[in-house]
This record gives sequence, structure tokens and C-alpha cells, in this order.
Amino acid sequence: MELLEQRILQEGRIKPGNILKVDSFLNHQMDIKLFKEMGKEFRRLFAGETITKILTLEASGIGIAVITAQYFNDCPVIFAKKTKSKNLDGELLLAKVQSFTRGTTFDIQVARRYLTPQDRVLLIDDFLATGQALLGMVDIVKQSGAQLAGCGIIIEKGFQQGGELVRSMGVRVESLAIIDSIADNKINFRQQ
Amino acid sequence: MELLEQRILQEGRIKPGNILKVDSFLNHQMDIKLFKEMGKEFRRLFAGETITKILTLEASGIGIAVITAQYFNDCPVIFAKKTKSKNLDGELLLAKVQSFTRGTTFDIQVARRYLTPQDRVLLIDDFLATGQALLGMVDIVKQSGAQLAGCGIIIEKGFQQGGELVRSMGVRVESLAIIDSIADNKINFRQQ
Repeated sequence: MELLEQRILQEGRIKPGNILKVDSFLNHQMDIKLFKEMGKEFRRLFAGETITKILTLEASGIGIAVITAQYFNDCPVIFAKKTKSKNLDGELLLAKVQSFTRGTTFDIQVARRYLTPQDRVLLIDDFLATGQALLGMVDIVKQSGAQLAGCGIIIEKGFQQGGELVRSMGVRVESLAIIDSIADNKINFRQQ
Repeated sequence: MELLEQRILQEGRIKPGNILKVDSFLNHQMDIKLFKEMGKEFRRLFAGETITKILTLEASGIGIAVITAQYFNDCPVIFAKKTKSKNLDGELLLAKVQSFTRGTTFDIQVARRYLTPQDRVLLIDDFLATGQALLGMVDIVKQSGAQLAGCGIIIEKGFQQGGELVRSMGVRVESLAIIDSIADNKINFRQQ
């Protein structure tokens, strides 16, 4: 998505270790105009799909998931929780997610009653890198018996294995920008 | 707001200790149609206000903040973070928040560069009970030098002291539903 790539080039900051920071428009401050364009692009990519639920992961996936839902007939959005929450009760669907950056494993959790075999689910998240969080959400959808339509990602780090891992399972993944490399302060996007 | 009160009466579940759970439409599964109506209501309540930034707190404030921003000229939304995040750098504005339910204190954090004295800020959150999180956000806006237009809350627990505490500081607080009491499985709303 040209608009997003331009924004990453303009405002993305590359930190030591070739870490890309996009907190000015994506995951601390959120640019609502851009989010609406991204939501429309997910609708275009998944045109023809009847989506009944969007599933995302707290916290930084929530903004784009909610905006995107408006372009999918205002379908409900569920956000998986990373911590045992007093807001969760009843039967829970759990998946273990390994965090390589933090060196820890945590559970993500969704109340079973919100995903049924009648649902057709779109997963939305801001970043795809190692793919562990996305795999956790795919697993939760499978446990629920719902159908998985695919995954919409804002930025995929194409130099990490997550995208390949999830696609190799036969899951459709659409990323609005795929970064193939970050080197010498230069960001290289994959042609899509 | 009639629509919201009806929804709370229909779907809110009262748990032991008179705890109200609204996870079917508010803070686990989010009803986007309802969120849009609530966003429009915040616009109506703060009609005439020129808002340049919306500030909320991760995670459950993000959804309503992002939807609401669309009715305030797509202004950017900042979400304060509850944990030291690798997405935060530069100078941070911090406020200590006491959690009575968890018996802990945590910092909420916003990068200073996203709030300036030129900004006029609307705070949005899903719940107002003891008011500690909201007071933390009010403090952060003060530190930034930005002007505070007020606070938009979905559900205020009128039987806890948060609303009175924040209003007594001269801060405008608009709550879409105020619950005056929960007793014997019955929810009583304040007439507004």
C-alpha cells in the first residue's frame, strides 16, 4: 500500500539493531485518517468475503481492528487478552504465545461464547514478525470451530519467518507493507 | 444515553459482589454499531469544542477512542501505555495510578512529543470508578501544557468517588451512563 509505505519512509525511525519505530502514527499515536484508508484496503483485499467477526490482540491491534470492522458491515471485534482478566469468565479458549523479544511465554485468551462454528473470522494485527501471536490467534479460531477467512496485517517484517510460517499452513495473509530488509538506515519494501 | 442503558440492562451480567460485566459489547467483544452511536453522542456533548487530540489508556479505551475520533475531524488518538514499552522513547510524561482492585500502583506513560501546548485534548475511557486512571491522564495533560477540554466516559459508577473527584477539580466529565447503584440484581441509572 503506497500511502503506508510513504508514511513509513517519512516517519519511521530506525533504532540501533535495525528496529523500526512507527509510534507517531501506528502504535502510540494513531493516525485515524490513515487507519481509515487501511481499513478500506483490507476490505478491497478481502472483497467478496462475508466476515462475521474480527479478532485481534490487545493492545495495539485494537485501533486498526475497530476501524476496519466498519468496512465489514460493522461486524463485532473481539480482542484477545494477554492477562487473566476479571472481565473474562465462562469457558476460555487459550493459546500459548512465545515472545522472543521478552524471552517469555504468555497465554492469549478469548471467551468461547464469542466465537462459534457459524462465524467466519478475519484476524487483524499491526505487526507480523515471528508470527507467534498470529499463530496463537489462528489456533484459537480453530479451537472455536469457526472458519478462518485470513489475516490482515499492517506491517510484515519479511526478513523474519512469521509470514512464511503462517502462509505455509494454508492461511491467507495480506500485509499492507512487507519490509524485506532494513540496512544502513534504509528500508526496502517487497513489491506486491 | 438511552441506547446504552438499554444494552446494559439487556446484556450486562451482575456477578457476586455486584460487579457488572459488559464484555459482550464493550470490553472483550466490541459492538461497532453501538460504538459509532456512542462516538456521535460524545460529539454532541462536546459540540463546539475544537479537539486536536484524543487521549485514552490501553487497552479497553482504545476502541471507543478511535471510533470517537472520527467524529472529531479524524483527530489523532494517543493511547497511554501501562508498561515500559520498547515503542516508547524520548522524553516521557508519567503519572502514577493506583489500582484498588489489584492492590498495586503502576505508571502510565505518554511520549511528550505527541502532546503540546497547542493541543486541546479530550480524554476518553470506557469506565470511571475510583477515577485513578482518569486522574493520571489529567495529570499527564497538565504536564504537557496542553489544554484539557474534558473527559468522555462510557459507564460511570456513580456509587464510587471518581466522578466527584475529577469534577471537583473543575474538569468537565460527560458519562454516557451513570450507575447509581447495583443492588439485588437491579441496576439503577442516574437521570441525566
